[in-house]
Amino acid sequence: MSRKVYVTGSRSDLRVPMREIALSGGNPPLRLYDTSGPYTDPAADLDLKRGLPPLRLAWILGRGDVQELPGPSSVYRRSREEDPALGGVRFASVRRPLRASPGRCVTQMHYARRGEITPEMEYIALREGMAPELVRDEVARGRAIIPSNINHPETEPMIIGRTFLVKINANIGNSAVASSIEEEVEKMTWATRWGADTVMDLSTGKNIHETREWILRNSPVPIGTVPIYQALEKVGGKAEELTWDIYRDTLIEQAEQGVDYFTIHAGVRLPYIPLTAKRVTGIVSRGGSIMAKWCLAHHQESFLYTRFREICEIMMAYDVAFSLGDGLRPGSNADANDEAQFAELDTLGELTKIAWERDVQVMIEGPGHVPMHLIKENMDRQLAVCHEAPFYTLGPLTTDVAPGYDHITSAIGAAMIGWFGTAMLCYVTPKEHLGLPNRKDVKDGVIAYKIAAHAADLAKGHPGAREWDDALSKARFEFRWEDQFNLSLDPETAREFHDETLPAEGAKIAHFCSMCGPHFCSMKITQDVRDYAAKHGIAEETAAIAQGLREKAEEFRKSGGEIYRRA
Amino acid sequence: MSRKVYVTGSRSDLRVPMREIALSGGNPPLRLYDTSGPYTDPAADLDLKRGLPPLRLAWILGRGDVQELPGPSSVYRRSREEDPALGGVRFASVRRPLRASPGRCVTQMHYARRGEITPEMEYIALREGMAPELVRDEVARGRAIIPSNINHPETEPMIIGRTFLVKINANIGNSAVASSIEEEVEKMTWATRWGADTVMDLSTGKNIHETREWILRNSPVPIGTVPIYQALEKVGGKAEELTWDIYRDTLIEQAEQGVDYFTIHAGVRLPYIPLTAKRVTGIVSRGGSIMAKWCLAHHQESFLYTRFREICEIMMAYDVAFSLGDGLRPGSNADANDEAQFAELDTLGELTKIAWERDVQVMIEGPGHVPMHLIKENMDRQLAVCHEAPFYTLGPLTTDVAPGYDHITSAIGAAMIGWFGTAMLCYVTPKEHLGLPNRKDVKDGVIAYKIAAHAADLAKGHPGAREWDDALSKARFEFRWEDQFNLSLDPETAREFHDETLPAEGAKIAHFCSMCGPHFCSMKITQDVRDYAAKHGIAEETAAIAQGLREKAEEFRKSGGEIYRRA
Repeated sequence: MSRKVYVTGSRSDLRVPMREIALSGGNPPLRLYDTSGPYTDPAADLDLKRGLPPLRLAWILGRGDVQELPGPSSVYRRSREEDPALGGVRFASVRRPLRASPGRCVTQMHYARRGEITPEMEYIALREGMAPELVRDEVARGRAIIPSNINHPETEPMIIGRTFLVKINANIGNSAVASSIEEEVEKMTWATRWGADTVMDLSTGKNIHETREWILRNSPVPIGTVPIYQALEKVGGKAEELTWDIYRDTLIEQAEQGVDYFTIHAGVRLPYIPLTAKRVTGIVSRGGSIMAKWCLAHHQESFLYTRFREICEIMMAYDVAFSLGDGLRPGSNADANDEAQFAELDTLGELTKIAWERDVQVMIEGPGHVPMHLIKENMDRQLAVCHEAPFYTLGPLTTDVAPGYDHITSAIGAAMIGWFGTAMLCYVTPKEHLGLPNRKDVKDGVIAYKIAAHAADLAKGHPGAREWDDALSKARFEFRWEDQFNLSLDPETAREFHDETLPAEGAKIAHFCSMCGPHFCSMKITQDVRDYAAKHGIAEETAAIAQGLREKAEEFRKSGGEIYRRA
Repeated sequence: MSRKVYVTGSRSDLRVPMREIALSGGNPPLRLYDTSGPYTDPAADLDLKRGLPPLRLAWILGRGDVQELPGPSSVYRRSREEDPALGGVRFASVRRPLRASPGRCVTQMHYARRGEITPEMEYIALREGMAPELVRDEVARGRAIIPSNINHPETEPMIIGRTFLVKINANIGNSAVASSIEEEVEKMTWATRWGADTVMDLSTGKNIHETREWILRNSPVPIGTVPIYQALEKVGGKAEELTWDIYRDTLIEQAEQGVDYFTIHAGVRLPYIPLTAKRVTGIVSRGGSIMAKWCLAHHQESFLYTRFREICEIMMAYDVAFSLGDGLRPGSNADANDEAQFAELDTLGELTKIAWERDVQVMIEGPGHVPMHLIKENMDRQLAVCHEAPFYTLGPLTTDVAPGYDHITSAIGAAMIGWFGTAMLCYVTPKEHLGLPNRKDVKDGVIAYKIAAHAADLAKGHPGAREWDDALSKARFEFRWEDQFNLSLDPETAREFHDETLPAEGAKIAHFCSMCGPHFCSMKITQDVRDYAAKHGIAEETAAIAQGLREKAEEFRKSGGEIYRRA
C-alpha cells in the first residue's frame, strides 16, 4: 500500500508531497517522487469548480515585487469575459492577474542570480534530495529551469535540468475534431496521476481560453502551451493573417492566466525554409509550419524572431519560461540531423543568450524522428550551441515503421537521449500520427515515458534512482508479491497480470510464480547459498563458501534435496 | 494490400518468400522479409495434422551424408510412442529420424568451411539481399549460424549473425500451471505471423514430447529448446536426480524430432555458484538454477561442462546449434555485469572453441537486466571472449520498476544491444515476472521486439533497412493513408487507431489528420515549397529558392493564401 506523506521544509507552508510505499518483512518504506498533487491526498478538500489551493501565493506576494492588476490586460480575454454566451463554460472564481511591479523581474533565474534561495528552490531541493544551493546555482547558470508563472500559484515547484531527475511531459488538448473541457481536465489529472511532471495544453478547437483556465486552476504541475495555436484560431486559421499584435495579446492573455512555459518557434527563420525542400517529410511541427507559411506569404523574417526582445519583456514580467520550439525538427528518420534542423538549433542558441540577458528561463526543444546512431549528436550539439540550457525532446522515434506503437519506438530514443543529458522528455502516445489520444493512450504514453526517464536516471547514476529498482528486485527475490505490486510503476496492471495466471490469494504469498510453477523456482536456490554463507559467518569470503559446499551437499541430500519450501 | 511473393533461386525448389506491399500513386511495391511461412500463402494446402511440406528434405538427402534410422534412438521417445494412453495427443504422421552417416558431420558450418554454398545459404542470401559467398564466409568463421536440424526440413532457412538483419525469438510453452498443445501451436503460428524469426518451446508441463512434435511439424521457423527442462520433468522435478544418461537421451530425443538449437547452460560451473551469493536476485535463469542445484547437491562440476565434447558429437550428427545459456545472467539491475556473469561468459568462450573444433554452430546467450550505461560492455566483452560467435540476448531490461511493461523496459535495451552487435533478441512480453503470456502478450512482445530489431538495423546501417521507413514516411507525407496502414508493422492496429478519431472512409484520402484538423496541416506546407522549386527547375539550388520566395509570396496571397486543398 502507498500513502501520501509530506516533508516539511524551513517554513510550515513548505510541504513537499511524496508517495510512501509500506513494505512487509521488516523492510523500510520507500518514498517516491509524487506528481499527482492533492488528488491523491485523502485529507484534501477538492472541488474542480474552485480549483486547487494557491500553494505558492504567499511566497509570490512575500517577495514584494508584484502588483495585482485591476483586470486582465488582454483585449481578447476581456472580450471572452464579457461574452454572455460563455457563461456555461467559464471557470467562475478567477483571481486578479499579477504582474511584476514596474522595473522588476520576477523570474526564478533572476532570484537565483541574485543569490536567493526561494521557497520554490527549497521545495525542489527536498523533492529531489539535492542541496538547495545546487538548485539555485543550476538555475542561475541556465542549466535548469523552474517553470513557475506567478499567476499559477497552484503548482508544486519542480525543476527541469540534467542534474536532476529526468522529467516527462504529457500533451493534452481538444481539437476542431474532438473532445471537451471536462475530458481535457480529466486527462490532465489522469496524466499527473501516472507521473507526468508537466502538461502541455495543445488545444486548437473551441473555447481554448476557457479550457485552459479550467486546466490551470486545477493543475498541480506546470502547464505549457504553444501560443501560436490560439493566435491562429483568432485569425480563422489563416497563418498569413497573423500579426504581432494578435500574437502579443495572446502571450499576455495566457501569461496572466498562469501558463508556465511557452513553446515559441522563433528559430524558424525565412532563410531556413528552403533547406527543408528536399526532405522526405518536410516541416512536421505545427507551429513551425504556421510560421513557415507566414514567412512565405509575407516574404519576411518571422515576427517571433524580430520581436524576440519584446517577447522576453513579457515573459520576465510573469516568469513564463521559454521552450524554444524546434519548428524544423525531422519528421522521419530520413530527415534527421539535417542542415535545416541544425541551422535552427544554432538560432535557438543565439536566442537563449538574449533571453538570459533579461533573466528569462529557457529550455530548448529537440526532435523528433532520429535513428539511434544519430541521437547523441543531437545532445552534444544542443549542449554546445545552446550553452547548456535544458533540452526537451519529443522522443525521438527510432524508426518510422510502427504507427500504433510510437510510444515504444520513441521510448527507446527518449531513454537514450535522457541518459545523454536531456532534461525533459515529451511523451508520445500510441495514437501519434493516427489520432488524438484517449484516456488509455495518455496512460500508456505516460508509463512508457516514466520507464524511459527512470532508465535514464539509472544510467546517469542519479543518486537514489536505483533504490527503487533494488527495493522491487528484493521484493521479487523474496516472493513478497504484494510489495512487488505496490512498488510497480503501475500496481494495478502488475496485480491484474499476475492474477490472470494465478488468481488465488494464496498465490500472492507463494514462493513461486506461474513461470516455473511450484516444482522449481530459480530464485529460491540462491537463498540456500546465501543462508549457508550467513550461518557460517563467511558472507564476505567466497572462497570459503566454495569450500563449504561439500558440507552443504551432504546437508542438501539429507534434507531430502528439496529446495522449494511452501510458504 | 500485401501479398506473398516468392523469389526463385538457382533451383526450382529454392523459393524465398517475401511480403510485397502494393503502393498507390505510382510508387513501386515494397518487399519485406517474411517469417510467416506458408500460413500467409492463399495457394498453400495446409493441414496442421499433416504438418508443413518438408521444404529442405531434398537438399538434405541430396548431400548424401545422412542415414535414415530404422526408428528413434531415444529410449524415452520409444516409450512415449508405445504408450496407448497418448494416442489422443500424438502427432500422427511421423517421419523416420535422420542422422549423419558414420564419420560424417552435417552442420552448415562444416559445409561452409569446406567452401560449399548450400541451398540453405543461397536461400538466406536471397532473403537478406546479401552475396551467397558472404553468407558462407560468416558461417565458416562462426560469426553467424544457420539453425537447421536435418530433422526439421520444414524450416525456411534463416541466419543469425550481426552482419545480417537483427532477428527476434519468441518464447512459448505450456507449464504445470496452464495451457494446452493447441494453444502452443497457435502461439507459434501467431508469433511468426507478426515476425518471430525463431521460436523457443519452453514447455515444462504435461506431454512435452508431443507438444514439441506438433510445433516442429508445423513450424516454418527454427525451434529452440532448453533440454534440461524436459530432463528435469523426467526425474520428477528433482534436480539432484538428474544424470548424464537421462540428459543425453533427452538431447537425442529432441535432436531426432528436429529441434534446431539447444540452450545448454554448460558455463554454470561449480566455483561460480558462490559468486552469486551476494546478489540482490541470485540466480534467475531456470536452467542455471537447475544446474546450480545439481552442483550443490553433488558437490561436483556440472555434467554439461564435463561432458561437453560428448554433447558436441550429438549436435554435429543432426546439425543442432548450441545456444550456450547464460545461467548466471543478472536478474536485476543491481546484479548487472558482475563477477559471476562474466566468469560464466569466459567459460562460454572456451566452450565455443571446443564446439568449433567439431564444426558445431554456436551462439551465446546474454542478459537480462542491465542499466543502459552497462549494456555496451556486455557486447564488447562477448565479442572478445567468445570469438565473435553471435550474441543472443534477453532484452536487456533497463529498469526493474515496471512489471507489466517489461516489453518496453527491455525493448529499450534490446534496441541498443542490437545496434551494438547482438544478432538475435529474445522477446520479453508484458507478462514477464508476472505470468504466462497469452495471445495478446505474444503479439505485444513480438511487435516491441520487431521495433527494437528494426531500430537496430537502421542504426547499424543495414543496407535496405531504411527503405521501409522511407516508404512509410513518404506515404505519410503524401497523405496516402491506406499505404501508410499497409506499410505499418501492424496494419490492423494502425487502421483501427486512425478510425477511432476519424472513422469515415473519406478521412483516409483526406489531406489532413485529426491532430491538426482540416484548418491546417504541417506537412502540406512543404509540398508548396517543393512544388514551387520543381516548377522553376531549381530544386538543387536552395539560394535560388529563397530568392523566388517573394514571387511565391505574391502567388500565395493571390490564390487566397490557402495551403490546404481538399483531396
